[in-house]
Amino acid sequence: MAESTYTVTGMTCGHCVASVTEEVTKIDGVTGVDVDLPTGAVKVTSAAPVAEADVRAAVEEAGYALAG
Amino acid sequence: MAESTYTVTGMTCGHCVASVTEEVTKIDGVTGVDVDLPTGAVKVTSAAPVAEADVRAAVEEAGYALAG
Repeated sequence: MAESTYTVTGMTCGHCVASVTEEVTKIDGVTGVDVDLPTGAVKVTSAAPVAEADVRAAVEEAGYALAG
Repeated sequence: MAESTYTVTGMTCGHCVASVTEEVTKIDGVTGVDVDLPTGAVKVTSAAPVAEADVRAAVEEAGYALAG
């Protein structure tokens, strides 16, 4: 099992959290997504490591951005 | 035709605007809802005047509140 935490910018409410969660959950192999709205921390749990590019693409699909 | 403008607090993003618009649009007789996110102004257009209590209930159903 792999676990990585990213920081997502631009989320302002529960709907934003739901959008990011929905898109990141769609990535192959992802088994869990936990978002902390105040900090923008998004913890991604997966069977095998997930490419950061895939997470970035999912976050952007939701309408937000990875910090850094 | 009647037109009233209310101020809604707590909206932070386009998802919030969509939620409020959806709920207020459901009120009987409402023909148009226009939300300005930065100010929270919600303009409600209707065939006949709509009770403020109905607008308040719809806004609260969406998860927000009328100012004042």
